[in-house]
Amino acid sequence: MFKQALDAAADQVGICLTEVLMPFGDLPVAQAMRYATSGGKGLRGFLVLESAKLHGIDQARAVYAAAAVEALHAYSLVHDDLPCMDDDDLRRGRPTVHVKWDEATAVLAGDALQTLAFEVLASDAVSDDPAVRLALVASLAKASGAQGMVLGQALDIAAETADTPLTLDQITHLQDGKTGALIRWSTEAGAVMAREDVTPLRNYARAMGLAFQIADDVLDVEGDAELAGKRLGKDADAGKATFVSLLGLDGAKARARQLVEEAEAALDPYGQAADNLRQAAQFVITRNM
Amino acid sequence: MFKQALDAAADQVGICLTEVLMPFGDLPVAQAMRYATSGGKGLRGFLVLESAKLHGIDQARAVYAAAAVEALHAYSLVHDDLPCMDDDDLRRGRPTVHVKWDEATAVLAGDALQTLAFEVLASDAVSDDPAVRLALVASLAKASGAQGMVLGQALDIAAETADTPLTLDQITHLQDGKTGALIRWSTEAGAVMAREDVTPLRNYARAMGLAFQIADDVLDVEGDAELAGKRLGKDADAGKATFVSLLGLDGAKARARQLVEEAEAALDPYGQAADNLRQAAQFVITRNM
Repeated sequence: MFKQALDAAADQVGICLTEVLMPFGDLPVAQAMRYATSGGKGLRGFLVLESAKLHGIDQARAVYAAAAVEALHAYSLVHDDLPCMDDDDLRRGRPTVHVKWDEATAVLAGDALQTLAFEVLASDAVSDDPAVRLALVASLAKASGAQGMVLGQALDIAAETADTPLTLDQITHLQDGKTGALIRWSTEAGAVMAREDVTPLRNYARAMGLAFQIADDVLDVEGDAELAGKRLGKDADAGKATFVSLLGLDGAKARARQLVEEAEAALDPYGQAADNLRQAAQFVITRNM
Repeated sequence: MFKQALDAAADQVGICLTEVLMPFGDLPVAQAMRYATSGGKGLRGFLVLESAKLHGIDQARAVYAAAAVEALHAYSLVHDDLPCMDDDDLRRGRPTVHVKWDEATAVLAGDALQTLAFEVLASDAVSDDPAVRLALVASLAKASGAQGMVLGQALDIAAETADTPLTLDQITHLQDGKTGALIRWSTEAGAVMAREDVTPLRNYARAMGLAFQIADDVLDVEGDAELAGKRLGKDADAGKATFVSLLGLDGAKARARQLVEEAEAALDPYGQAADNLRQAAQFVITRNM
């Protein structure tokens, strides 16, 4: 049921992305934008659509918010994969953008995907209420900028040259920005669109996002590169502190399971209507443990 | 009078940028964001403030829109200067961001400056009216994305490997995106904030923006690198078609002067109140001819 909902969401969001990318023509940068926004699991878009369902928001409107966050996520991956950043040649089981095109195209495609996210959120496709569109723009900017996702990435880079490995608190803070902020934005989007209380979804997303990142560290150690669609073992090779290096493999898994329970409990106010989100929390740790 | 207004605008916008960059702490990426947004002439911020004056908009509000467009402009310069793009080591008379820090910091600082532009525009500092803030966000996204500034940059890159040099129409289209779109956005901002007709300012900006770019091509050929604060002669060295290569040096200068006359005439509806903008149009071609 969750798997079907995830795939259906990815299809819907993919159609929407095709539509919003249509005006950009066929230059390499536009091709790269289409490529970078396809082939993923679409977890963030799925979270937006589920969150919208819980708050009675029309899926035909919410799908634009879902497309926006997937565009923003895609920009971050394209830039993170650059040689000067993580230097990855494989993503979603395919060559990364700078490998398939070149670095200049990857920089520009990433830049334009970020812009696109804000353009889509500001459009009347998302909501008739300007205050809602503005709230989505402002919160996505906060989540993705130098106090959110970029901060996480910057802390990650700083950690590579630091004298001492990060502590558990520091890694948690880093990951809260790097991965957590966008997951939180996605999960809260439906409540924001309905102008309702975001607290239950925020608590869910905080626990689920951290479980997601712990699971990612576990995957980096014991996952299957082919299934993951990206290179693994890079963190250990780089001697970086991770949840696994700090908690041990069993400790990390136990912590992730505990967080998933917290995430599920946070959804109590929604009853069974939130079952897809509960299964999503399970999924982020079972995909690879 | 114009020069004083330009300097005063740069000071005001600089103070505002310091304020909005305050929360970002002192990591290299935040330092690089401050560095990249300082030291420029601040033409785009000045255009916002002048446009706001013409439409009775409080300068204390307009300065945030000015700071936003200067942040966005700074992001584009930081990324354009990257080794994989124009590979420049000098900007505003100082080392470029990737030279002073490193490429990863330059990519991230540029990314976060783009985000910051949208965050500032979405904030209530700019206007109490959500519809106004939204109009500014939507139009800046359109101006700077893959149908605007990034399109211009992508066309520029495509031209480097094309078999035939660009025609005058193609270069005009390219520059309309690369430089024109942001200049237009800046010039229209005051009318957008007042919810008034943007047509006269749009006509001014279209002519002035093109004159600006022609003047830039002239500067590239006969300018003084020290005064310009960046490397010159790069286009000619690269064998790229420019307004100068297509129109000749005298033809390019004549065309720029004609465009400045058009720009000045477009401001007739504003009378003497628009004198600073008229002088700005003169300035863009006299700074280097």
